[in-house]
Amino acid sequence: MEYTFSDRIAALQPSAIREILKATADPEIVPFAAGNPAPDAFPVDAVREITADIMANDPITALQYGVTEGYEPLKKTITAYMKKKHNVGRDFDSIVITSGAQQIMDLATKVLVNEGDTVICEAPSFIGSLNCFRAYNAVLAGVPVEADGMDTEKLEEVLKTAKNARFIYTIPNFQNPSGATMSLEKRKEVYRLAKKYGVLILEDNPYGDLRVSGEYIPPIKSFDEDGIVIYAGSFSKILSPGMRVGYVIAPAELMAKMTVGKQTSDVHTTMLCQMIVERWMNNYDFEGHIQKICDIYRKKLDLMCSLLDSELGDFVTYNKPEGGLFIWCRLPEKVDMMDFCRKAVEQKVAVVPGSAFMVDESAKTDCFRINFSTPTDEKIVEGMKRLSKAADFYR
Amino acid sequence: MEYTFSDRIAALQPSAIREILKATADPEIVPFAAGNPAPDAFPVDAVREITADIMANDPITALQYGVTEGYEPLKKTITAYMKKKHNVGRDFDSIVITSGAQQIMDLATKVLVNEGDTVICEAPSFIGSLNCFRAYNAVLAGVPVEADGMDTEKLEEVLKTAKNARFIYTIPNFQNPSGATMSLEKRKEVYRLAKKYGVLILEDNPYGDLRVSGEYIPPIKSFDEDGIVIYAGSFSKILSPGMRVGYVIAPAELMAKMTVGKQTSDVHTTMLCQMIVERWMNNYDFEGHIQKICDIYRKKLDLMCSLLDSELGDFVTYNKPEGGLFIWCRLPEKVDMMDFCRKAVEQKVAVVPGSAFMVDESAKTDCFRINFSTPTDEKIVEGMKRLSKAADFYR
Repeated sequence: MEYTFSDRIAALQPSAIREILKATADPEIVPFAAGNPAPDAFPVDAVREITADIMANDPITALQYGVTEGYEPLKKTITAYMKKKHNVGRDFDSIVITSGAQQIMDLATKVLVNEGDTVICEAPSFIGSLNCFRAYNAVLAGVPVEADGMDTEKLEEVLKTAKNARFIYTIPNFQNPSGATMSLEKRKEVYRLAKKYGVLILEDNPYGDLRVSGEYIPPIKSFDEDGIVIYAGSFSKILSPGMRVGYVIAPAELMAKMTVGKQTSDVHTTMLCQMIVERWMNNYDFEGHIQKICDIYRKKLDLMCSLLDSELGDFVTYNKPEGGLFIWCRLPEKVDMMDFCRKAVEQKVAVVPGSAFMVDESAKTDCFRINFSTPTDEKIVEGMKRLSKAADFYR
Repeated sequence: MEYTFSDRIAALQPSAIREILKATADPEIVPFAAGNPAPDAFPVDAVREITADIMANDPITALQYGVTEGYEPLKKTITAYMKKKHNVGRDFDSIVITSGAQQIMDLATKVLVNEGDTVICEAPSFIGSLNCFRAYNAVLAGVPVEADGMDTEKLEEVLKTAKNARFIYTIPNFQNPSGATMSLEKRKEVYRLAKKYGVLILEDNPYGDLRVSGEYIPPIKSFDEDGIVIYAGSFSKILSPGMRVGYVIAPAELMAKMTVGKQTSDVHTTMLCQMIVERWMNNYDFEGHIQKICDIYRKKLDLMCSLLDSELGDFVTYNKPEGGLFIWCRLPEKVDMMDFCRKAVEQKVAVVPGSAFMVDESAKTDCFRINFSTPTDEKIVEGMKRLSKAADFYR
């Protein structure tokens, strides 16, 4: 039988990028293309104790159906924590536990965006979110990311002209892929503009806890007295991505619709994983664990940057991020970016071509993304040497 | 701020049904409205041993990112099992592990259905699936369910006239809510018609293992030499709904698109739960466990039916199902169904109004659904007495 697909999914084609990423399954390849937490960043002993405790003392709750909104003790724990630590959440807000933060992008688009409506995105941005918006046939409007975050003048131009703009999607901390962190001034300006033009903000903060230098900057949601910010949080980078637990804090009226949307998507998030997160937050030194992870990633980031300078200082330029998992590298203008990425794979090191993150998929970019959390220190050293060999073809 | 929602979600309104179901949170209410497995139907000891083993011997796999298609050993285990036991799966098919079977309805609709296309459904059918199709702005075309399954003459009429019919959604075994099981002849006829009209079949089989009487009938997917059947399987009713693990077996070309769709929905299904299911299938007597559950449910079904006959034999009519979790009861014509359901809640017993399952939401129905897996035997006895008291208002 010949199959006909929906317009929304037909548009999401496998690309040259995927072909490059496929090669990374080869274990001889140094994995700078991934975004996995380091294996030593998992609190294995804590999770082992917690699961044993749950299976001994409350197994039926873990195995039985739960409610769509999420496991009540976890909702309460996160609500209190986010209020205290980040001033996130007002009386008009509520919380829903999601199957990873990716599901928040899906649910927000599902309940807010009709086909042909506009979603305003940072350019470049996270491919998983961009493809999610595309899967609803949204029109993406890109706003360039500068060293201190979104270009807010361009943002206002887009807000003035975009057709049915429904929300502004931003990753303010250690943005994927650019590594940029939005300044406090720009956060306030983005909020002011969103309010002025009656457009919501979808604030995605998966990396916020992974700050390894510089000063804390409060989330946009912490200013939200008007009910215009949807805050997406995740445990993937601080506890475990394999558990798929995220949470969304947003005005209750929006959350009621997102709950209906989640009901038809996956009914509820796995109970066992929700219970593990709740007990981890309440009974373990999870703030201490975050500090431990930050120490691991600070060292890896410093190592990678010092090698970028010594091995590739003549070839790539970059802004050192203050946290997160990624470094965004710019090639000399004369170098064909896709060609360089292919050369890198030939040298057995995988990087992600910058085109993967373009809001306008046909836009040209001289950049590629590398990750420092997945490879071991030895692999980082080896990978940088291999990248330099790939650069030799253009030197 | 005043929020504007997408057309797709604005159509899914809370209803009078929800108001009735809300009342069921009251612990004094006998829960005939639920669809939960009985607590003694969970293999708690097995899951306790398995989780301890995973956390001792393979914790990083459980905590790290997985691939979207699913945990490879689980895919292999289910593929071999479904081929051997049900003759499901051909060389052109592949498998993806999903976050419960609900996600299969979501992904199939996502990749196949444009807004305004038709999905053909059994009438009545499972509300979670109907709302899923509605959330993609699909047009639902209902085909009445008879005692031996879909009315296949009506099905052909619908196939002839429906605008862009994309798939036929069916629950052939112990259908929710009707309890009907589709005969072998009708399964073959539905397959023949689907092939003739070039329309796919989405075969949803969450209850298939819960047969308590009558003869096994092979799934429609077992005839599928043409690549036109998408088979949805679930562990919710035989192992645990809280884990949210399902699987879809369908032609590889369709699965590639569903994988792209899942990537933007939730990236992958929780690794820990996938690993628990795999070890349970391979290292435990899970067929023996299914037999044990069937014994539990056979007794509960028999108990409920004997009480339906003795307490309400003059008032409701029903066909005793050969398995599953539900009995579909018909009221005398003179009785207002919603009014009776409200009376039942007043008597502290909750049933689901049949209108919840209507394909055409404005269609009239004299039916309501009751469940025998959730309440204890004592509650079944008490609940039936209370239902009879509600009936007294009309006797």
